[in-house]
Amino acid sequence: MKVYSKSIRVKTSSSVEFVNITDKVVEAIRESGVKDGLVNIFVPHTTVGLYINEDESGLKRDIDTVLSKLVPQGAGYMHDRVDYNAHAHIRSTIISPSITIPLNGHRLGLGTWQSIFLAEFDGPRERRLIIQVIGV
Amino acid sequence: MKVYSKSIRVKTSSSVEFVNITDKVVEAIRESGVKDGLVNIFVPHTTVGLYINEDESGLKRDIDTVLSKLVPQGAGYMHDRVDYNAHAHIRSTIISPSITIPLNGHRLGLGTWQSIFLAEFDGPRERRLIIQVIGV
Amino acid sequence: MKVYSKSIRVKTSSSVEFVNITDKVVEAIRESGVKDGLVNIFVPHTTVGLYINEDESGLKRDIDTVLSKLVPQGAGYMHDRVDYNAHAHIRSTIISPSITIPLNGHRLGLGTWQSIFLAEFDGPRERRLIIQVIGV
Repeated sequence: MKVYSKSIRVKTSSSVEFVNITDKVVEAIRESGVKDGLVNIFVPHTTVGLYINEDESGLKRDIDTVLSKLVPQGAGYMHDRVDYNAHAHIRSTIISPSITIPLNGHRLGLGTWQSIFLAEFDGPRERRLIIQVIGV
Repeated sequence: MKVYSKSIRVKTSSSVEFVNITDKVVEAIRESGVKDGLVNIFVPHTTVGLYINEDESGLKRDIDTVLSKLVPQGAGYMHDRVDYNAHAHIRSTIISPSITIPLNGHRLGLGTWQSIFLAEFDGPRERRLIIQVIGV
Repeated sequence: MKVYSKSIRVKTSSSVEFVNITDKVVEAIRESGVKDGLVNIFVPHTTVGLYINEDESGLKRDIDTVLSKLVPQGAGYMHDRVDYNAHAHIRSTIISPSITIPLNGHRLGLGTWQSIFLAEFDGPRERRLIIQVIGV
């Protein structure tokens, strides 16, 4: 049984940005040599999330639009007295910082239209990503 | 250490439908022979999600009602110019396509009232489900 | 390869309450002796969720405020005819009962500002928490 861990830096360039990190995950799996098991992706930040969906520019805008409507910036949050980013923390609570995907025959279990995204909600910043591969 | 993987087809019969897949997961665990570890369930689709909650018909309607209010169909989404299902993609982003559950003594760690649901948001379709069991 | 499992009781003291359970998870990891792998935390309940974010009292209030606005109590839910807690079930569907975190060098992969919270949506109650550590 093997456990392979890789830490990666991702630079975001605007306040809200959804970065396709699928290639980085695929590369870590190749490096790991693990054939069958699980891949966990985790961001050690409180204003970032991870999600899986289609990499279509309109859809990425739509996801931002909906999250901005459900959790608007500056809506009188108590946390904004500490730091003006409560909306980013709350969106990160809804879009979790952790995702787990099956790995079979050295291949990630993603479907044809699925990509993995790091969702920046309080950028631009340099973010860290942990890719953990566990299996045989 | 064992890794057992099973791919299952699930047919949905309406545009929105929450299908209780607990029995299929329990069956895969039995087949795996794994006693203690983790079970990851994953749907390789961008308009489907997985959630755990009670199998009560009223509650299933309520969850649909709330998601339909938070992410209404046809609300001027950019992705709807490509394919008229942006609402399904966005709901799938909120209700993640992956869930992980502990396994102890050959038993899934679900509580008395918990069932596992495949949430179809753009049916009817035939969907695929990956059940990955890892442990000893 | 080791699998270590621990079941913990957590008492909540009001209807909605976010309890920081990070110390309990860290303690379970120490007991497990596992150095590298994955930690899965799971609540076997349908009106509780788990999330990771900052332990700041204003932010905790903000998260409650937003969830209460998105999924208000008593909004004519069908499940409320069975038991007056549909809002808690639906919030638990959005804030999942399962979270997975990487473990490296005996250390949980949490970032500086991240804490793990049990989100009670239908308390006060005694809740159960399963911490599963898997790895080498």
